[in-house]
Amino acid sequence: MSSPQTRGLLYGISVGPGDPELITVKGLNILRNSPVVAFPAGTAGKPGIAQGIIRSWLQANQLQLPLEFPYVQDEVILQTAWDRAAAQVWPYLAQGMNVAFACEGDVSFYSTFTYLAQTLRKLHPEARVQAIPGVCSPLAAVASLGLPLTVRDQRLAILPGFYGLEALEGTLDQANVVVLMKVKSVYSQVWALLQRRGLLDSAYVVEWATLPHQVIYAGLGDRPQLDLSYFSLLVIFAT
Amino acid sequence: MSSPQTRGLLYGISVGPGDPELITVKGLNILRNSPVVAFPAGTAGKPGIAQGIIRSWLQANQLQLPLEFPYVQDEVILQTAWDRAAAQVWPYLAQGMNVAFACEGDVSFYSTFTYLAQTLRKLHPEARVQAIPGVCSPLAAVASLGLPLTVRDQRLAILPGFYGLEALEGTLDQANVVVLMKVKSVYSQVWALLQRRGLLDSAYVVEWATLPHQVIYAGLGDRPQLDLSYFSLLVIFAT
Repeated sequence: MSSPQTRGLLYGISVGPGDPELITVKGLNILRNSPVVAFPAGTAGKPGIAQGIIRSWLQANQLQLPLEFPYVQDEVILQTAWDRAAAQVWPYLAQGMNVAFACEGDVSFYSTFTYLAQTLRKLHPEARVQAIPGVCSPLAAVASLGLPLTVRDQRLAILPGFYGLEALEGTLDQANVVVLMKVKSVYSQVWALLQRRGLLDSAYVVEWATLPHQVIYAGLGDRPQLDLSYFSLLVIFAT
Repeated sequence: MSSPQTRGLLYGISVGPGDPELITVKGLNILRNSPVVAFPAGTAGKPGIAQGIIRSWLQANQLQLPLEFPYVQDEVILQTAWDRAAAQVWPYLAQGMNVAFACEGDVSFYSTFTYLAQTLRKLHPEARVQAIPGVCSPLAAVASLGLPLTVRDQRLAILPGFYGLEALEGTLDQANVVVLMKVKSVYSQVWALLQRRGLLDSAYVVEWATLPHQVIYAGLGDRPQLDLSYFSLLVIFAT
């Protein structure tokens, strides 16, 4: 068994919203210098999102380690997956090899990295972990829109889309700018709420921000229904 | 006069929270390839913050253009400064030269870039502007803390510190995680509020995130007063 000093480090690398060049210089340097590069595995035979983003940066001598994280809410299934992922990563760290775990967006912002890091620390309290911050999708989305997210004394609220509409009502009363992450499943209800509050012209949906297939819906007045992808977000400039 | 096609582009380059390597690859490429690099001028003979961050990336043949943005609330003084800054930038754009305007953090997130871009577009509607997203300070701060900012269904609120405490009370009722930007001027009142709500152990102050002189105050129980710098932020994990 190696001593703590010679153990490897698990890096959480924020690879950004989609454009491969929106990784930071620091994240890219660590990614390129890590003998092992892990990432959430894709589904249905397709590469994972982070995997697709970093593809052009990887080198042939790097070991690629896809880790399975099921898209479910069930706690037992999730914890089993995190345990298994931590068990896959640990042998490399124990041998003194650094592991770069690449995640889309920022690794501290609704990220799979959190669960992997927490599980690893629970199973191996001596594990060393470091997060490298990056570009989160709301900031990428507004840059694509050509609009600022916040100015001056504006208050910002960010919430996952699968919240009840009650939470969104309360949030719109408090905040000037509201971002709804993963809006897909609640879009039509949110649309009705925005219509009631007269906010359809101040709302924007961005899908696949910064990627070649990015889609922007600017103004939602004539779009009560939208068939959106999983990573769509909605920005509301309420006041 | 050059045609619109040959006019230069004003880029807003997000240079990140402080560590020069936390600029994105995209931002760095544009920064290095722009003949003119603008940034908010420093005060009291010291370089500006963004200027300090990008210093190591600049090359001798790049024209450096410090722009004065006074730290005041007065609308007339501010608009005069934005007009003057836009007037300094425009001649280069009109000649077909790209200008990279470097700002700390992200250029869409409480950034001077917004005012420069809006003023430039008002004076010269034909001006072309593009924001390059980057790492905002809250994400850098939590990465330094070794904590996630948000997980699962958590709601996040971000507000400028100079708000009244009433707004903070209401926000703490709505959000799971609250970030107070520029907390310096209200710290002692916020401390009293956190004490009343039993949140002092769940609150963290980060100054100069990711810079060598970064300071972290983890747990604020014994710190009713703190002499903080302008760019300090406070993160409250309320629930």
